[in-house]
Amino acid sequence: MSNSNFQALPGFRDFYPDDLAIRSHIMATWRDVARRYGFQEYDGPPLEPLELYTEKSGPEIVQQLYNFTDKGDREVAMRPEMTPTLARMAGARANGMRKPIKWFAVPQLFRYERAQRGRLREHFQLNLDILGEADVSADAELLAAAIDMLRAFGLTHEDFVARVSDRGLLRALLLHAGTPEDQLVLVYNIVDKLERETREAIAKRLRDEAGLAADAAERVLDIFRHTDFDAVREAYGETEGVGPEITRVGLLFTALRDMGLGDYVRFDLSIVRGLAYYTGTVFELFDTRGELRAICGGGRYDNLLKQIAGVDMPALGFGMGDVVLKELLTDRGLLPSTKHVVDYYLIVGTPAERPAMLALAHALRDQGHAVEYTLPEAGRNKQFKTASALGARHTVVIGPEEAAEGVALVREVGSGQERRVPLAEVGRP
Amino acid sequence: MSNSNFQALPGFRDFYPDDLAIRSHIMATWRDVARRYGFQEYDGPPLEPLELYTEKSGPEIVQQLYNFTDKGDREVAMRPEMTPTLARMAGARANGMRKPIKWFAVPQLFRYERAQRGRLREHFQLNLDILGEADVSADAELLAAAIDMLRAFGLTHEDFVARVSDRGLLRALLLHAGTPEDQLVLVYNIVDKLERETREAIAKRLRDEAGLAADAAERVLDIFRHTDFDAVREAYGETEGVGPEITRVGLLFTALRDMGLGDYVRFDLSIVRGLAYYTGTVFELFDTRGELRAICGGGRYDNLLKQIAGVDMPALGFGMGDVVLKELLTDRGLLPSTKHVVDYYLIVGTPAERPAMLALAHALRDQGHAVEYTLPEAGRNKQFKTASALGARHTVVIGPEEAAEGVALVREVGSGQERRVPLAEVGRP
Repeated sequence: MSNSNFQALPGFRDFYPDDLAIRSHIMATWRDVARRYGFQEYDGPPLEPLELYTEKSGPEIVQQLYNFTDKGDREVAMRPEMTPTLARMAGARANGMRKPIKWFAVPQLFRYERAQRGRLREHFQLNLDILGEADVSADAELLAAAIDMLRAFGLTHEDFVARVSDRGLLRALLLHAGTPEDQLVLVYNIVDKLERETREAIAKRLRDEAGLAADAAERVLDIFRHTDFDAVREAYGETEGVGPEITRVGLLFTALRDMGLGDYVRFDLSIVRGLAYYTGTVFELFDTRGELRAICGGGRYDNLLKQIAGVDMPALGFGMGDVVLKELLTDRGLLPSTKHVVDYYLIVGTPAERPAMLALAHALRDQGHAVEYTLPEAGRNKQFKTASALGARHTVVIGPEEAAEGVALVREVGSGQERRVPLAEVGRP
Repeated sequence: MSNSNFQALPGFRDFYPDDLAIRSHIMATWRDVARRYGFQEYDGPPLEPLELYTEKSGPEIVQQLYNFTDKGDREVAMRPEMTPTLARMAGARANGMRKPIKWFAVPQLFRYERAQRGRLREHFQLNLDILGEADVSADAELLAAAIDMLRAFGLTHEDFVARVSDRGLLRALLLHAGTPEDQLVLVYNIVDKLERETREAIAKRLRDEAGLAADAAERVLDIFRHTDFDAVREAYGETEGVGPEITRVGLLFTALRDMGLGDYVRFDLSIVRGLAYYTGTVFELFDTRGELRAICGGGRYDNLLKQIAGVDMPALGFGMGDVVLKELLTDRGLLPSTKHVVDYYLIVGTPAERPAMLALAHALRDQGHAVEYTLPEAGRNKQFKTASALGARHTVVIGPEEAAEGVALVREVGSGQERRVPLAEVGRP
C-alpha cells in the first residue's frame, strides 16, 4: 500500500516552517497596519454558493473556478475573491452597523488558471474595505492604508508608486470627447491597452470597434497625453460636467499630500482596471523598476452592495496578494530572518536529574520562554551539540552537584557569561 | 439581477469581527504555547489529491469529503484532516531534517456531515506533532503541550482532564487474556462501547462477533475493571509480554508528574480511539463536567509515515478543534473582551484644520497607534459623539487656536485629564 509519490497539486504551495514564517511576517504586518487605521478583521467561508460569483462577474467566471456540485446537490465554488463574501456579510447586517464599516480580511483565494510555469492557483490576499461612506476622504484613507501597508515592510517611494485614476473623471472626459454613453465600457477596454499598442492602433479600434468619429477618437487619445493632474486640471477644469470630477479628485491628492504621502502617488488616467464594477477612484501599486506585476489594486465600487445584497451602500477597497509582495521584499532584502528561537536548552548530567529538569522545563514554559531539551536520555556532549545546532540563547545544566544544591548552571551563549542560579529563579528577570 | 438572499452554505461560519476576534485569541494562544514547546508552524494546501485520504482511511472516507474532479481531470478533496498532508510534507524532506521534527499547524478542515442542527462542516484545528522520536519522553512532551494549550486559556484541572491509555499495553493485555491476534481490531471496536453498553452486552459481542471463548471474554472485561494505573501495574506488572508495556506507560505518568501536571492526567484503558492507525499512547481531553464532546484527541501512530510517504519514522500528535474549546471557554467565562480599540480619535474645530489633522493622524499611525477621525467634514459635536461611541482612549482636538499655536488638546478619556501638547509630541511617551 505504500505510496511515496504523493505531491501537492500543481499550483498549490506547501509552507514548510521557513516559508510559513515569511507568510506570518507578511500577515502580521498587514494586520498591524489595518489596526492602526481602525479596521477590524472578519472572515467568511472558503466555499460559497457558485451564484455569488456569477452574480458579480457573469457566467464566464466559472471556467476559472474550482467549482463543483456538493453531496447535497448545491452548486458551490472555492472562493476566487473576497468582495462578494464581504458584500453578502455586510449587506446582511448593514442596517444595524455604524458607518463607515471598516473591515479587512486575509483570505486564501483559489483560481483554476491554465497551467503555466510557476503560475499559482491559490494565494493569500489582504482585502481592506470601507463601506457606507461616499465622500472622497474615504478614498484618501483607503489609499493611504495601501501605501502604509508597504511602508511598514521598509519599502519607500524609491521602491513603489501608486498610480491613481478615477472612473468618474475618465467617464466625464470620454463623454466630453464625444464617446456615446453606451460605448463607454468598450472604450475603457480599448484604452486599457494604451501601454501595449500604438496610438494608431488604438485610434483605429476606437473608430472601428466603438464607432467613434475620427475627431472624437483623436480627442479621446488627447485625454491620455496629460501625465499629471495639474495638466488635466488646466485643460479641463472649467469644462462643463468635468469640473466637479476634477475638484473631487483634487481633494484626494491634497489629502494624501497632507498626510505626507505625496511622493507615493502619481496621477495616471490609463489605470482603467478592467473590472466593470469600479465607479470612482481606481489605483494600482507598482514597483518603480517595473519588473513585477501590480502589487495591489483597488478603488471605489458603489454599486456592488446593491447588486449582491440589495443594500444601497457606497463602498471601496483594495486587494494585495502575498506572492508579488514577497518577490519584491526578497528583491529588496527586506524579509526578516526565519530562525527558530530557543530561549533555554536544558541539559542533564545523568538520568537522575531528569525529574528536576522536567520540572524546570515546565516552569520556564509557564513563564513564556521557549524551552527544549533532549527527549530521550543522551550523553552530555550530545545534549550540548543539539543546543548549539538549535542556536539556543541559554544553556541550563543540571548535573548531580547542581541537583543536590537546588541550582542550575545557566550560560548565556552570546556573551559566554555563566552563573549558578537557584532552580526557582531561572528565567526570572 | 439583485439578489438579497445570498447566505453562507449550511454548516459554514461567517466570522464577523466579534467572532473573528475570539478565533484570533484562540489561535494566538495555541501559537504561543507551541512556541514555548519549540514547535514550528507549517501549512499545506486546503485542497489535496483525493488518494491522499483514501490511502490513509480507505474508500469509505469519500462519503464524508468535499471531493470533486478538477478542470484538469484530477480527483481532489478539500482536506478533512491535516495528518496526511503532514506525512506527505515531512516524508518528502525527512532525510535532510534534524529529528525530532516538532511541527504544528492551524488548518481549516472540511467534512460533509449529514445535515444536523448546529453541526458544522468546517472547523479550525490545531495539529501538533512530533516526528522521528520513538521514546516515551516524546509522548510526555506531547501530552504536556496539549494540557498547557488549555491551561494557557485559564482552564485548570477543575475544568478538564486528560484520559490516557496505550494501544501497546492494551494489545498486550488483550493477547494475554486470550484474544487472537487477528481479532484485535474488532475487539478494540467492541470495547470502545463500554461506556454506552452493558457489560453483558459487550461479553456477548466478544463471544459472538469476535469468537472469544466465554472465559476469554470475561478476562477481557476484567482488564477494564482497573481504573487507575497502579492497580494495572499491581495486577499485570510481572506478566510476560505485558511488563515492558507497563514500564513504558509508567514512565509517561512519571514524567507528567515531574512537570507538575499529575492532576491533569487519568489512566483510562477504555480510551480506545476508533482510528486503526494508533500504535502507542492514546489520549483525549474532556471537560470534567462531561457536558461536551472531547476537546482534543491524539496519540502515537508509528506506521503512518511509512504508509503515506514510504519513510519509516515514528510519529505522534494531537488535534484540538476550535468549536468545543470555544464552548468550554464561553461556559467558564474565559473569553476575552472583543472590544475594538481606538487609541486616538482626532477632532477638528473647522474644516481649515483638516490638513493639520491628517498630518497628525498619519504621524500617530506611523508610531503604531490606532487612530480614527470623522471621514467627511462634520460638526464638533458629531465628532465627539463618534469618539465616545467608539470608546476612544484619547480625544485630540485641533481647533483654529490650537492650529495657530501648533498644538492639540489631548484628553485621556478614562481619567478626564486634558493637556495642550505640541503637534510633534502627541502620542510620544
